[in-house]
Amino acid sequence: MMTRRGVLRGLAAAACSVATARVVALQHVSSRPPVKATRLRTRLEALSVYGRPASAGFEGGVSRVAYSDADVAARAYVMGLMREAGVEPRIDAAGNIFARREGRERALKPILFGSHIDSVPQGGNFDGDLGSLSAIEVLQTLQERGQATRHPVEIVVWAHEESAAFNRGLAGSRIVAGDFVPGDLAQTWNGMRRDDAIRKIGGAPDRIAEAAREKGSLHAYLELHIEQGSTLHRQALQVGVVQGIVAIDGFEVVARGFANHAGTTPMNERQDALIAASHLTIAVRDIVTARRGGQVGTVGRLEVSPNSPNVIPGEVRFSIELRDLSPAKLEDMAAAIEARAAQIARDTHTTIELKPNRHNPPANADTRVQDVIAGAAKERGLSTLRMPSGAGHDAQMMARLCPMGMIFVPSVDGISHSPRELTTWDDCTRGAEVLLDTVLAIDED
Amino acid sequence: MMTRRGVLRGLAAAACSVATARVVALQHVSSRPPVKATRLRTRLEALSVYGRPASAGFEGGVSRVAYSDADVAARAYVMGLMREAGVEPRIDAAGNIFARREGRERALKPILFGSHIDSVPQGGNFDGDLGSLSAIEVLQTLQERGQATRHPVEIVVWAHEESAAFNRGLAGSRIVAGDFVPGDLAQTWNGMRRDDAIRKIGGAPDRIAEAAREKGSLHAYLELHIEQGSTLHRQALQVGVVQGIVAIDGFEVVARGFANHAGTTPMNERQDALIAASHLTIAVRDIVTARRGGQVGTVGRLEVSPNSPNVIPGEVRFSIELRDLSPAKLEDMAAAIEARAAQIARDTHTTIELKPNRHNPPANADTRVQDVIAGAAKERGLSTLRMPSGAGHDAQMMARLCPMGMIFVPSVDGISHSPRELTTWDDCTRGAEVLLDTVLAIDED
Repeated sequence: MMTRRGVLRGLAAAACSVATARVVALQHVSSRPPVKATRLRTRLEALSVYGRPASAGFEGGVSRVAYSDADVAARAYVMGLMREAGVEPRIDAAGNIFARREGRERALKPILFGSHIDSVPQGGNFDGDLGSLSAIEVLQTLQERGQATRHPVEIVVWAHEESAAFNRGLAGSRIVAGDFVPGDLAQTWNGMRRDDAIRKIGGAPDRIAEAAREKGSLHAYLELHIEQGSTLHRQALQVGVVQGIVAIDGFEVVARGFANHAGTTPMNERQDALIAASHLTIAVRDIVTARRGGQVGTVGRLEVSPNSPNVIPGEVRFSIELRDLSPAKLEDMAAAIEARAAQIARDTHTTIELKPNRHNPPANADTRVQDVIAGAAKERGLSTLRMPSGAGHDAQMMARLCPMGMIFVPSVDGISHSPRELTTWDDCTRGAEVLLDTVLAIDED
Repeated sequence: MMTRRGVLRGLAAAACSVATARVVALQHVSSRPPVKATRLRTRLEALSVYGRPASAGFEGGVSRVAYSDADVAARAYVMGLMREAGVEPRIDAAGNIFARREGRERALKPILFGSHIDSVPQGGNFDGDLGSLSAIEVLQTLQERGQATRHPVEIVVWAHEESAAFNRGLAGSRIVAGDFVPGDLAQTWNGMRRDDAIRKIGGAPDRIAEAAREKGSLHAYLELHIEQGSTLHRQALQVGVVQGIVAIDGFEVVARGFANHAGTTPMNERQDALIAASHLTIAVRDIVTARRGGQVGTVGRLEVSPNSPNVIPGEVRFSIELRDLSPAKLEDMAAAIEARAAQIARDTHTTIELKPNRHNPPANADTRVQDVIAGAAKERGLSTLRMPSGAGHDAQMMARLCPMGMIFVPSVDGISHSPRELTTWDDCTRGAEVLLDTVLAIDED
């Protein structure tokens, strides 16, 4: 074991080429356990039926919004897989599903890894699912080989990662990170109270505080995920070593005008909230693209009231979301958007209210864990790239508690949050294998 | 009777001043029957509870969309009022409610008058309601006075006037005008088929063609309605004599981009359907306001898919509605909008499809009926204005079958299709009285 550890360290230290890494990989291929590629694929396909649109196939994507009936059914399915892998799942107070396999050394902290299985509406079958089922696959591989680890190994399927429900995602991991306000439990979404929603998936909202885990109580957190962007695919690279997760600032915006008859109200007397919202939607894009860099800004949700062809819109509610690694740049963009909103409100005789409703600081991956992932990938002969994550992940919450690392695999054409989301089966297998190798290498630390 | 008729003719012919009209009115005030102002008000208030928002008062407006449970309940209420007035209501195959009082001369055609009681979502308590309940009031006044008419008198509460249901309004009067395609019965809206909807309000979709009435089968059609614009209120005038109803061209627009992850898709790779829709929404306003005249254009309904803060909008469906007295100007504006849409689609890497879904030609009021209305108002000492109607009305359908006339009363601040819609009780009474006088004057023709 020490030999392999030495090789990994050597790889991390040397700026070795992909070609060199391939030679090393060939030398060591027999010492690493394989994951069962067919089993992983079969389970991804089986999971995809929970929330699949009627009369669609795997390609039809999935709508498995957190706390939906489809989510509940899919959670039962993955808990069955955990039992099949020989570990007993438990649901924590927040609704997260954990399963633990003890290590040889009782005093050591657990290595935690996993992802989520909830989706956006009309999402794809890889976002979250790949990392969740690969975690089970890794644990089952260790079990089947009877391979002991020094640290306890814990896998997790996080509850409610996407922000489709209750308009604030990463809820399960956020609660575990201790970032939780009791008043949140009274929030309603889709006719459901948040405490009832947590109860629906087997959580215990009355004891919600018990879900929090202490800072320093984990050896490391790892997460395999699809990239969701096009960087790896465009450059024909196989593994992304995540440097950190960008900060996200979200706003709930309300433009208020006056609902009046569309036939009888002269153009110059209108207070059209949709005209105001349209100007601001375009302004968000203009402000974001006017600056250098990879920052993004999106108006993704917009609702018009009363929403009738013959009534001037009286109120429009919409979301603004800004992402970048630099919080300073986010603040600068938000200030520009607010100034523009004030001008638009004056011009359109409306009022525009911007209320921050999401603030995720950037989360850095542990550089040492990054090195281990890069080394593990190279030892398998895989090409790698250090890159930021433009998407938010549960890993950013775990980064508050312990060293965190993320493994990315390519998304074909960078398509995600869409039924057309696709990662090749070979890339899925490679991701699971790098996860397995990384767990074992970190276990030796 | 001839004397009064002679006076009316004289008034119409002479360009007499309001002051002169007032003198004449004083001379004749005793010969005209009064309507019961308190009864009319009490009934308007009673009707307003059907579809009133929970825990709101009369000022909370009403959501009584056609075919809703509230609509069904309100229809039962007005049918009860008709019975109270001594006439038996009948529901035609299209769901319209008629009631008839026979005249002295069997060979004569009926004079028809009425309005509608369905509303837009979050609408007001005068649009349609005033004309409907005033029609019942006029008929009941004749009954109570035992005042015979030469022509049969028929009142109507039209089904489904607003375009809130099935996205095509004036459905009840449209069917009576013979403008109906049997395939329409299979349309669905809000989970309801159109034929089931018509059945729900007591209509007979299987015999829908029987609802059509023949051209020339009515002596005249009259409708009292609130103006819904601010012209009368701003000029402190009491009665609007409608010259005609503007033409309306409606379009259903679909902007299609590509739904992708809002964090991982670079700005320059986006195909954001909401950016395209926002540009076109602003373009509609720009194109309409760039031309001289009173034309209007509105994007009132807009729906985003998948509508999640962290997903780039893949599809946006929205309405465009254009109104003007001149069909040529509507065509010109529509062509400019289509050209602009094509440019926006190219710029935003989306597709934009515009499909006409509404085409109402302008409907002229009969000039002779206009003169009678103006004369009746002046005889009551009321100030008048000849004006177009920017809103569509059932009257435009009846104009295809017979001479048509409309009476407008002021809307405070021109607010309509809103809970804040308001017409003073005095103006409501004046409108009902002018309607009564107009019916009697036309009956003498």
